[in-house]
Amino acid sequence: MTAGAQERFRVFYRIFADSAAQAIRRAHDIAIEQTVEVPADVVPEGFIADEIVGQVGRAEMGERGVFDVAISYSPDSVGSELGQLLNVIFGNSSIQLGIKVIGFEPGATISGRFAGPRFGIDGVRARANRPKGGLISPVIKPQGSTAQQFADIAFRCVAGGADIIKDDHGLADQPMAPFRERTEAIAGAVARANAEFGMSALHFANITGRPDQLVERAFFAKQAGAGGVLLMPGLLGFEIVHRLATDPDFDLPIMTHPSFTGPFVLSPDTGLTHAMMYGTLQRLAGSDISVFPNVGGRFGFSAEECVSIADACRDPEGMGKSIFPSPGGGMSVDRAADMVAMYGDDVVYLIGGSLLRHGDRIGDAVAAMRQAVDAAARVV
Amino acid sequence: MTAGAQERFRVFYRIFADSAAQAIRRAHDIAIEQTVEVPADVVPEGFIADEIVGQVGRAEMGERGVFDVAISYSPDSVGSELGQLLNVIFGNSSIQLGIKVIGFEPGATISGRFAGPRFGIDGVRARANRPKGGLISPVIKPQGSTAQQFADIAFRCVAGGADIIKDDHGLADQPMAPFRERTEAIAGAVARANAEFGMSALHFANITGRPDQLVERAFFAKQAGAGGVLLMPGLLGFEIVHRLATDPDFDLPIMTHPSFTGPFVLSPDTGLTHAMMYGTLQRLAGSDISVFPNVGGRFGFSAEECVSIADACRDPEGMGKSIFPSPGGGMSVDRAADMVAMYGDDVVYLIGGSLLRHGDRIGDAVAAMRQAVDAAARVV
Repeated sequence: MTAGAQERFRVFYRIFADSAAQAIRRAHDIAIEQTVEVPADVVPEGFIADEIVGQVGRAEMGERGVFDVAISYSPDSVGSELGQLLNVIFGNSSIQLGIKVIGFEPGATISGRFAGPRFGIDGVRARANRPKGGLISPVIKPQGSTAQQFADIAFRCVAGGADIIKDDHGLADQPMAPFRERTEAIAGAVARANAEFGMSALHFANITGRPDQLVERAFFAKQAGAGGVLLMPGLLGFEIVHRLATDPDFDLPIMTHPSFTGPFVLSPDTGLTHAMMYGTLQRLAGSDISVFPNVGGRFGFSAEECVSIADACRDPEGMGKSIFPSPGGGMSVDRAADMVAMYGDDVVYLIGGSLLRHGDRIGDAVAAMRQAVDAAARVV
Repeated sequence: MTAGAQERFRVFYRIFADSAAQAIRRAHDIAIEQTVEVPADVVPEGFIADEIVGQVGRAEMGERGVFDVAISYSPDSVGSELGQLLNVIFGNSSIQLGIKVIGFEPGATISGRFAGPRFGIDGVRARANRPKGGLISPVIKPQGSTAQQFADIAFRCVAGGADIIKDDHGLADQPMAPFRERTEAIAGAVARANAEFGMSALHFANITGRPDQLVERAFFAKQAGAGGVLLMPGLLGFEIVHRLATDPDFDLPIMTHPSFTGPFVLSPDTGLTHAMMYGTLQRLAGSDISVFPNVGGRFGFSAEECVSIADACRDPEGMGKSIFPSPGGGMSVDRAADMVAMYGDDVVYLIGGSLLRHGDRIGDAVAAMRQAVDAAARVV
């Protein structure tokens, strides 16, 4: 038994209910569901009833039928595993309608166990040698190309001034460009272009595979010269982000991608808010750059939702270091001014498949984007 | 480049659209989004355009505004990783409103790469020495107890006739009962009870932790005498299920738990159907027993949704071996007849915290459940 000087962490739930009394009853059900998961009358007295069961705070009424309730939990219900922290925050309650996670306060004890991002905005800027201004990140695609074709694209993008060369999240270990061959080719091309053009571009290699392969592949990418890794927590789980962010030998920044997470934010009355999913949770896990679908692209997030994500990524009061929001989709030279006005300076702009329209002159397109972002920043 | 004699796999999407023409346009967008993710006009001709890009089949109109469309994909867009298969099925499209995955046909090539469950219903029955009738599975809780307290409960449950002793999914590696100590204690108690009462009960140990710990912990549980493992794909990712289901040395059945997956099924117009999430995907990954919230409990799944899950688990035309559906919540002696009528014979009944009301006589409560299920089966 531990306990004593530990500080409880708090999760804020939005509960959809007919009355305040019903909302409070549901909150007490959540406090039990997320911890002991037994009927209230059989909770053992003492430590379990007093510490382990969640404790319901005051409910605040929002719009009609909407109540925001804080529930605090003991760090002992978590231990030191990120997966179990998420399990307590929203494991079984994720399967109940009318409950949305809207906030998280780690408290001192959980903050001590999960330090968050290793690099954050300042650390990534230092590695990419881009002290100010938005970072430009072309995405290497399409799937089905050879490793050499990807490497050629990467080389040209760095020549044009790219800060980050990001693998498409659909590049896994397919036969056309297996992971190791592809990673060596792209990282090698980025290194050559950096040397030739005096750049410090970072290649973020997409890490996929079986759980017991992931760490090994991340280190392979590092050995091959990658400047960071791309991870998909929706498919791999969040633990791998934490695992690599806290490995003293790994020491590379992490970018996270939203694949297979959409249902968590798309329903108004279940899941998590956009800010929680693509801001708070990514930062909690240790991501340095959080990718999300940009407003105006093909995903239908609103400007308000995108700004809430960016705010959660960069909130100075948030957990650990501030991180880069990285809106993907819909970025173009024409929209650069709007995007800079919306997101400000600390942002990684993904530039996707439209770049391929420029063929061998893809580097010029990257340079044009760099200029457009810098020009917009001077105006702002 | 491979290709040639490969058979494409098909994913069935329900698309919410204003017209058939719009639905077809959206389907073509999905076919690109899930593969090359570049504008249609820059897709390279040849192999990529002909093989890698998804191919849209015929759309069938359902209710007004609802269209069901099949899209086929090349196994080359996947390779041999389960995570990448899920990425192609629903990675980025999960973030777009109005698309729900309603079906999956693996085809011969993907079926060859992902063989599905190792044990299935027959294999688990053989291990538990329960050739017919529903299996009874008490859940060991509450979190906050000591390893010895859990072991005592497990011993009494086996004495009462339990087939499976399942760890609560909230038992991770907390200080009150760390993973190794807890697993040795419970598995040891189950082994002693099996010997004393002539039973073949299986302890399913909950495996959590960092990705590079999972396989090691699963083997630790096996060494300690566990008869199976419990995994949470919503938190750990689906790859760990496939990893263990295909390891020739591991050779234990796998039970999967739905924690952190609710938002995938709770919205009518995004995510996956209940049958896909808790039937097809679990079976694809290699689970032998799929836990889901029972109708009439506290989760609000309908009887129809629960039956659709059970059907997908046991469909003889489904992928690989048929597996056990395992409804949790709301099971009692009084409801046994209804449950048997609803789920039939091939089912694992979870019995949760209400068992704790019986204190030291918990074994009698398990025995009463065994009798009630058997009596109901004779009537049916």
